[in-house]
This record gives sequence, C-alpha cells and structure tokens, in this order.
Amino acid sequence: MLLDRIDSPADLKKLSLSELPQLAQEIRQFLIEKLSATGGHLAPNLGVVELTIALHYLYNSPSDKFLFDVGHQAYVHKMLTGRMDRFDTLRQKGGLCGFVKRSESEHDVWEAGHSSTSLSAAAGMAIARDLKGEKNKVIAVIGDGALTGGMALEALNHIGHEKRNLTVVLNDNEMSIAPNVGALHNYLGKVRSDKTYRKAKEEFESLLRKIPAVGGKLAKTAERFKDGLKYLVVPGMLFEEFGLTYFGPVDGHDIEKLMETFRQADKVSGPVLIHVLTVKGKGYTPAEADSHKWHGISPYKIESGQVVKSVGPPMYTEVFGSTLIELAEKDERIVAVTPAMPGGSGLLGFQKRFPERMFDVGIAEQHAGTMCAALAMEGLKPVFAVYSTFLQRAYDQVVHDICRHNANVIFAIDRAGFVGPDGETHQGVYDIAFLRHIPNIVLMMPKDENELRRMMKTAVDYNDGPIAIRYPRVNARGVPMDEEPQPLTIGSWEVVREGDYAAVLAIGPMVQVAEEAAELLKREGINLRVVNARFVKPLDEEMLLSLAQERLPLLVLEETAIAGGLGSAVLEFYAAHQIHHLSIGLTGVPDRFIEHASIKEQRDEVGLTAEDVAQQIRAMAVRVRQKAT
Amino acid sequence: MLLDRIDSPADLKKLSLSELPQLAQEIRQFLIEKLSATGGHLAPNLGVVELTIALHYLYNSPSDKFLFDVGHQAYVHKMLTGRMDRFDTLRQKGGLCGFVKRSESEHDVWEAGHSSTSLSAAAGMAIARDLKGEKNKVIAVIGDGALTGGMALEALNHIGHEKRNLTVVLNDNEMSIAPNVGALHNYLGKVRSDKTYRKAKEEFESLLRKIPAVGGKLAKTAERFKDGLKYLVVPGMLFEEFGLTYFGPVDGHDIEKLMETFRQADKVSGPVLIHVLTVKGKGYTPAEADSHKWHGISPYKIESGQVVKSVGPPMYTEVFGSTLIELAEKDERIVAVTPAMPGGSGLLGFQKRFPERMFDVGIAEQHAGTMCAALAMEGLKPVFAVYSTFLQRAYDQVVHDICRHNANVIFAIDRAGFVGPDGETHQGVYDIAFLRHIPNIVLMMPKDENELRRMMKTAVDYNDGPIAIRYPRVNARGVPMDEEPQPLTIGSWEVVREGDYAAVLAIGPMVQVAEEAAELLKREGINLRVVNARFVKPLDEEMLLSLAQERLPLLVLEETAIAGGLGSAVLEFYAAHQIHHLSIGLTGVPDRFIEHASIKEQRDEVGLTAEDVAQQIRAMAVRVRQKAT
Repeated sequence: MLLDRIDSPADLKKLSLSELPQLAQEIRQFLIEKLSATGGHLAPNLGVVELTIALHYLYNSPSDKFLFDVGHQAYVHKMLTGRMDRFDTLRQKGGLCGFVKRSESEHDVWEAGHSSTSLSAAAGMAIARDLKGEKNKVIAVIGDGALTGGMALEALNHIGHEKRNLTVVLNDNEMSIAPNVGALHNYLGKVRSDKTYRKAKEEFESLLRKIPAVGGKLAKTAERFKDGLKYLVVPGMLFEEFGLTYFGPVDGHDIEKLMETFRQADKVSGPVLIHVLTVKGKGYTPAEADSHKWHGISPYKIESGQVVKSVGPPMYTEVFGSTLIELAEKDERIVAVTPAMPGGSGLLGFQKRFPERMFDVGIAEQHAGTMCAALAMEGLKPVFAVYSTFLQRAYDQVVHDICRHNANVIFAIDRAGFVGPDGETHQGVYDIAFLRHIPNIVLMMPKDENELRRMMKTAVDYNDGPIAIRYPRVNARGVPMDEEPQPLTIGSWEVVREGDYAAVLAIGPMVQVAEEAAELLKREGINLRVVNARFVKPLDEEMLLSLAQERLPLLVLEETAIAGGLGSAVLEFYAAHQIHHLSIGLTGVPDRFIEHASIKEQRDEVGLTAEDVAQQIRAMAVRVRQKAT
Repeated sequence: MLLDRIDSPADLKKLSLSELPQLAQEIRQFLIEKLSATGGHLAPNLGVVELTIALHYLYNSPSDKFLFDVGHQAYVHKMLTGRMDRFDTLRQKGGLCGFVKRSESEHDVWEAGHSSTSLSAAAGMAIARDLKGEKNKVIAVIGDGALTGGMALEALNHIGHEKRNLTVVLNDNEMSIAPNVGALHNYLGKVRSDKTYRKAKEEFESLLRKIPAVGGKLAKTAERFKDGLKYLVVPGMLFEEFGLTYFGPVDGHDIEKLMETFRQADKVSGPVLIHVLTVKGKGYTPAEADSHKWHGISPYKIESGQVVKSVGPPMYTEVFGSTLIELAEKDERIVAVTPAMPGGSGLLGFQKRFPERMFDVGIAEQHAGTMCAALAMEGLKPVFAVYSTFLQRAYDQVVHDICRHNANVIFAIDRAGFVGPDGETHQGVYDIAFLRHIPNIVLMMPKDENELRRMMKTAVDYNDGPIAIRYPRVNARGVPMDEEPQPLTIGSWEVVREGDYAAVLAIGPMVQVAEEAAELLKREGINLRVVNARFVKPLDEEMLLSLAQERLPLLVLEETAIAGGLGSAVLEFYAAHQIHHLSIGLTGVPDRFIEHASIKEQRDEVGLTAEDVAQQIRAMAVRVRQKAT
C-alpha cells in the first residue's frame, strides 16, 4: 500500500510520477470504504483525487495556500496532510470535520461551508502576500456551480482588476449539487465540447505572437483583430475578458496533464484560470451514475450502493414537498424558487408535476430573494425554499426588496435549528435573530408535521405581506394528518399542556422537549404548562398579557440563538407594556459557534434537553418561592 | 414651454419627434433649477434625460414596466408621469421621494435604493407575465457600476438561462458613484472605444446569416467559426455569452438613434441588452466636470456651481478619514477596503496617501467582507468602511467568513441611525440587530468625535477578533480632540452625568439627547443619570449589575430598531442573571420603515427627542413610585 507511506505532503513528493495513479486508486478505495460507515461528501471527493494529488505534489502547502471552495471536497487533502487515521470519526462529535478546519491542520488555511467564498479569500491572500513582500502561491479550487454565486463573480471582477498572481482552478463537473442551471453553465458546456479547435490552440497562439505590433491608427484595429483570432482558438475567452489568462480544458483525472498545465500557468504573470474537467463520483459506479444523490450521502453498502435508510416518520422537508404539490394543484398562483437545492428542499416532486412553475436559479440566494419579491408584486405566490443558513446570503434582499415592498413572498426555511454533522457553517440558528426585526414579516415554526401543513395553508391564504415558515432537519413527530389543512389565526399560540407551576414557551421540536420535561416534573408533583409559541412574529399578545396576570415563572425554549430570539421578543413585549414583575428565563443557543456532532449531541451540549428544562424550572421556581417568602 | 403640456406619458406622445430635443433641454433646465434649491441626485438624472424620453415615447407605461436600478435616476421619469409640480418638496418630509416610490404613481413599479436589484426584479416580472399570458415589455435600466454587483450577475446568468423577452438597458456612464473599478469596467471601455468595427457590424451580421447551415461533424466547427467572426464585429460578446442579444453601443443623448435601437431590439425574441453611452451631468458644466461630486448634491448656486456649505463641526465621516491616516502612518498593517464609496466613506485622503493600501472593490459588499477576512487572517488589519445599510448585503460574509474565523477585521460602519432625505431604503437602523447575535464580534458606538478616535485606536490595538464601530451621518459634537487617542477598555461604559432618580443608557448621538433631557428634568428637581453605553457588545456587565442593585428605573435610548437592539441585549442580560425586579423602558425605532425627511424630523416622528425622553422618565418614575406605595 502506497497510502501507508503518506503522512504529509513531503511523503507524497517522495513517490515517483508513475506511482501516483496507484495512489489515486488507493485513495478512492479508502474513501469508498470509510464513507460507507460514516457517510459524507463522497462524490465531490472522488472527483478531485488526481487534482488534489497534483496540487500537493507540485506545490508546497502550507506556504503555498490551497483554498477549497465550500470545503466539502477536501477529504483527499486531509488524507495527504496527516489525517488519514481520523476518518472513522468523520463528521462526528470531536471527530474529523467534514469541511476544511484550521484547528485540524496548518494545511487548512481557509474554512468554508457556504459556496463561492474562495475567490474573495484568494484575492485577500494574494494582496496580503504582495504587501508583505512574500512569494507564495495562492490557489483557489472552485466548482462550476459555485462560480455562478454572485460573490464569486464580484471577486472575479476584482481579481481581473488587481492583476496579482493567483490561480483559480475551475473544477468543472457540470454539477453544483443539483445539475447546474444558467447561462454560464451553457457557456462552459460549449467550451468543454469544443475539441476541434483546442488542439490547434498552441499553434495559433504562437502565430498570434508573431503578428508585429503596429502603432498609430491601426493599433486598435490590430488588437481587435488579434482578439478575434484568439476567440477562434481560445475556448475560455469569457474569463480572458474578466482579465484572467485561461488554460484548459484539461482532463482532471490525468495527473501528468494536470501538472503540465499548472507548470505552464505558473509561467504567466497575473491571475490565471485553469479549467479542469472532472467526473463527480469518479471510480465508484453508483456515485458516477447519480452524483446528485451521492453528493452528500448517508452510510451505504459498498457492493450495492444501497443507502442504509433511517426508519421513522417522514422528514419535515418531505411533508413540505408533498403539501406544496397539494396546495399548488388548487392555487395556480403558487410557484417555487430554489437556489440550487431542488432535492435538498424536497421540491423534486413539485418540479416534476409543475415544471413551468419551478425555478431553480442556481447558487444565487440574492437573486432568488429579489426575484420572489417581483413575482409576488405581479400577483403570484412565490415560495422561496431555502436553508436557514443560506438565507443569510439574502438578508439585504429580504429587508430591502421583500419586506420593504411588503411583497407576498412565502419563505420555506428548511434546516432551522441544529443541523448535526455539517456543523458550524450550516447551523440554522440565526434566522429568527436576523428576520425578527424586519418590519412586515410574519414568522412561524410548527410543532409537528400537521401544523407545518396548516402553516403552509395559512401562508398561501395570507395576502398582507411576507410570511415565513421555519422547520428543522429532523424526522417529523408522526402525528396524524388532517386531510384538508386548516389555516391558523396569525399570531395565535396554543397551550398544549395545562399546568399552574410555571410555563414553558417553546417552538418547533422544543415543544416536544418541553412536554417531556413536563412528564419528568409531573412525577415530582410539578405541573408545567407548555405553550406552543408557534408565531415568533407577531407574538400572541393576549396570551402574554394573561400569563403576566397569572404571574407564573416563564421559560422560553428555542433551538436558536438566544440573542435576538423569541425570548428576546417576549422580554421586549413586556418592557413595552411596562410589565416588570415576571421571572423569565431564556434557553437557547449560547453566543458561540456549535461544531459538528449529531443533533442530539448538539442539544445536549447547550442544554436543550428535557432534563435540562426540568432542572431550570425547578431552579426558577425555587427562586421565585424564595423571593415570595 | 413644451414642459407645460406634459402631465403624463400620453401627453409626451403627442409631441412630434422633432420637438423632443427641445423637451430634453427644458427638462435639464428644470432639474438644474429645482435641485439648486433642494439638492438631490442631479448628475445621474441629467445623464438619462433622452433615454427616459425615448422609453416613454416608444413604450406604454405602466403596462410596459420600467425598472430603474437604484432608483435615484428616476427624476425625469417622475416629471413625465405627472409629478413635476412636486419637485419643490423633493426628499423632504411628506414630499416627493428621491427614489422610485410605488405609492406616488402607478408608473413606479419597482422601488430601490440599493443597487443591482433591477435585473432580478425584471426576471421575476417577465416570468409572471409569461405565466399569466400577458404581453407587456419589461425594461430594466441599470448602470455599469451596478452591473458588477454580484446579484446583478446572478440575475444575468438566470436571465440568459430562462430566455424570456426582457430588455436590459445598460446605462454606461463609466461611473458608479466613484469611478468604476474592475475587469468588467475595462471590458466596457474596450467596447466603447471600438468604433472601427462598429460600423461594419450590420454588414458582417448579414454576411454571417448567409453562411449556410451545415450538419454532421462540421456543424460545431462552423458554429465556432461563426462565433469567432461574430466576435470580430460584435462588441458585446461577453453579454452574448451570457445568453443576451447585444445592441449598441448607442449614443444615449440621441433620442432618434435610441428609439431606432429599441425598435431593432424589439424584433429579437429572448433577452436583449442595449448598451447606451451617457454622460453623467450632461448639460450642466460643473456636473459634467466632476460627476462624482455631483452624484448626490446639496443645494447650490446655479451660476457658479458653488455648493451651499453647512457650518459646524466636521462630519463623523471626516474624523474617521483623517484619523485612519494618522493610525496608518504608525501601523503598516492597516489597509482600507470600500465597496465603491471612497468619497462617501471619507477615504479619499487615505487613498491619496496610501494608494497601495486602499482597495475599492466596486459595488461588491460580499466580496469586500470575505476579502477582509482573508486579509486579516494573513496578518493585516483591514478596515471595512461601509454604510450600515449596505453592510446588509454582507451579512452572511460577516457570520460565515469574518466572525466564524474570528478574523481581526475592523468594521467602520458609517450612516448608522437615521440618514435623513435618502429615506427608508438607506436607514442604518438594523445593524445592531443583525450583528449583535453573531459570536465573537465587538460592537461600539461613540458619543462624540474624540471617542470615535479612541474607538479607532481601540480597534487597531485589538487582536482578538472582529470589532465594529458604528457612527452616524451627522456633524460631530465639536468637542476638543486628544492629540493621541487612547484606547478604551473593551466593554466599558461611562457615566457622563450623575443622577439618582433614573438612568438612561444611551448610545451615539442619543447620549446628547439624554443629556438635554437631563437638563430639562433638572428644572423639575429630577436628577437623571446618563450612561454612555458605548459598547453594545460586550455589555458593561459590572455596571449593569450595579445598576440593578440601585434599583433605578432604566431607559435604553438608541436610534436603531428596538427589536434586537441594545435594549434587547440589556433585557437578555438581566434575564440570564435572573434579575426581574427592574423597571426598564426601551426607546428606539419602532417596527416599521421610516420615510424620507430630515434626521431631526425622523427623530421627532419616533420619539427620540429630549422632550420625549424627559416625558418617558417622568412616566416611568411615576409608575415605579405608584408600585412602591
């Protein structure tokens, strides 16, 4: 096994060129085996085996800096930088992170999780290098999907302007997570297929160099003519227009060709773009056949590629997807918008049923948000299906375009709360804090899947402005479903369990946690009231005033940042009404980033369990009693 | 006067073609005169006089939809749609809005204030039109600066993919607010200057059409060859690669040529881009000579172009700019990053003094934020100078790239609080709410310009993560300045006025308001304590605990959204410490968008004046006394 000899990039460099294909083979085998037990981003990593080997063989990490866009395709990089022995712990609490992680290794220089950040980071690192008078390489590896994210294009524009040495490796596998959309994708397709002229490129370029420079009136004409000829032979002219020198396309699974191209590119001064063609899932038949499914995968059987299915009620995502179809059958105003997540957002069924009402805009949350505003203002009912963490990208569009216009946009905010093994870059714990202060928005979270359906009906019926439903990345509760979901009264909470000792105001999955705490406390003779505070905005003011009259101790329970959360809203309400006599506790996510682990472990870590809640209630009640005596 | 006959687009259509240049002349005269009294966005509007006339003459607003990107260049549109008589009230309370405003006219279909949204909106309107089976035109007018904003490029990518009928008018004046930067800008420059081939364009295109289609193996080759030839003659090939048909460049001050081009473009199916060359400030010599200065202008004298200067202490922006130069002289790690606002952010002096340490990245807040993270991680001290309202665009980058990496980025957040006549799209009242819940960030606001300098020194000395200073768009207080600004202790508040009746916790300009309220109350024998709560995060926990022991009624006073603001943080702190006996009031911006007016009027409107504060203190104290008896 060559793999056994590799504990660092230095070890890799000891291998001969001819040994590298075997190493690639062993890496693939390793990943396929390890991930069958842990799950993880298999297909993206199988696609970059040779590319990562070539980078580490040719350059000197960590002084040369490799930036992996999104960072889920850095497994091979991790293997080559001394972390092979930790793959059994991948994406588990305390284990190897599924993304680039600076605390793991000096070779990890830029963390990500959201896409399209690597070019901006590379620009910053190149500027810092030059100002410090250093000489290292800065190499960003970015997928063709991530390249269409607005910030990557902003960065490209600035990189072309700065003209500093910097390498963009365009890892073109024709996929982001879902198949790509967009004009740039079509453009790349044209470049990829354009073999006719590719071969002639070098001859043409050398010919171009021989055209003598002319001055005076003819200079511009000659320049233009050269550009035109170049266009005939250089496939990546679009990137050249952005000011980068284009190389490629090159077969991303041919290590020698890759290194040859890198060496050529190194001779050029200024920013270069190397267009590398890779196959997502390369070397594992099931993953090659359906790289969308195998982008991020649960544990599977290697032979069959069969995924080990979890049992239990459907995920909230699935209930959302099927309910949306039902509603759209009856209301032709409904259209769905997703930024490159048709599968993850549960919209594949909708897409099949209503292809003309489904808009996958690519990795483009900002565009998606503002386009939804316009769709709504023209009388449609756009459903903006987006993960909580990715909605962060569209914050300004929510404020400036959707809420300020008071447009009837429905937000379907998936992955709200902890997300488990994707960890800190993906936690959906800020959306309440970044949405709640925006005027005009209604913000809800269901306690179970039947309530999710009712909230969707509520949202479709609502015509007074933006309305958002957030739901978690967990299995639903398995409750019976109403045939016809009935809308809720905006701003209405419900008491799901009576009690006169203290009250918990909980949302989403925390309602169940509160109910379990109530069961624990019941054994001690304590009757805990549980309120499903399903509207985060507007609050149920009537219930809040009545709770104040009862003078019960209150505990707000939410799987979201405490700062600016539901609890904060409750406190603001009482302050506005000059009600100051209440004992109110806030339980939620503290002021730090929560790393990868299972959702259960993440809840344990911050104290969002039934036992924690019971303990807090006991303590609060004791304090209140002490004060009263 | 032709102008007297125009009260609607229908009136405009009654004029003959030959009368239009005179109308343009009258419109310019009108704008130059009216704005000399009110101030406003003069230069951008002088640039689009003929373009706007052509659009309204040729198309039928409001069934055809005109979307003005940013919306500050819609004055001519307002004049032609029945609002000429309201220009004396421009940008004043209750008066004509300086941006597109739906409540003003049915011809205003898309509001903006932030740039780069119009293409996404146009995409949404085109989709809605097609789904509803309607036939109207959708026309977005976007500047070359706004086009480099990431979301505009995301939209372009999607528009090219959707292939729906839609017109993008690229209003190319070689400027955003400051001169443009970026590769796209250079590209446009090349296109603009390329007169040699432009004339031959039509002949070449007709020639291209005559090349017979070929099938089989040769088809791709032929296609490629055609593209190459086309590139020789079509200047806007980059846009064609994005899937739009390119027309132009056309002289934006020649109404007949403009209309001819629009008519040609109308014959094409699918999205088109019309490249219009305009001169910002056209027709008014001072504005043509310095269109940057004349982008948004205060009242001026028409003859001389001399701006009526306000007297008083310097703006906070100026103090920031000069102090940054001082600090940068001594600390070579300091670099400045601005998204297209070198002038507005007070950085022109820095740019001149340290050109190699100044980075204007164009309209690209997302890229700016993430690039700052990388600069900091490589040991520099990037100062991200940005308006509060535009920082909204980089929210995700602040969370995911800056704070999660705990990078030493300094935020200089200008225009925090009310901004006056720019109105609701530009209010800087959300940054506390959208930053406060992010782990690792320090958030400050100075009470005067000397404290701004101290905060800047504090930020430069701080090496434990991101740190933000927010300051308002007003004149500073005129206090004496320390020669050498001394750093503050992180999380330290200060008592600026003693008192034992109640305490106000205030930030920024509200400290002065609280002091004035204290003066009013003193006459009534009430001693109000005023605390400068200059650290919004972390709070001064010691002082908060000591205030709790004193049991004073507390009023939190901030010119920012109440929801999620400083007051909210104070309430959360006391809840976390289970302190429930305090009477706390929150005063700030209520849960609605605040329209254009002077800053003073905006404060009046929401109750942020000394008299309001005094009144609240009286009421709170009465309540507390009632309770006590």
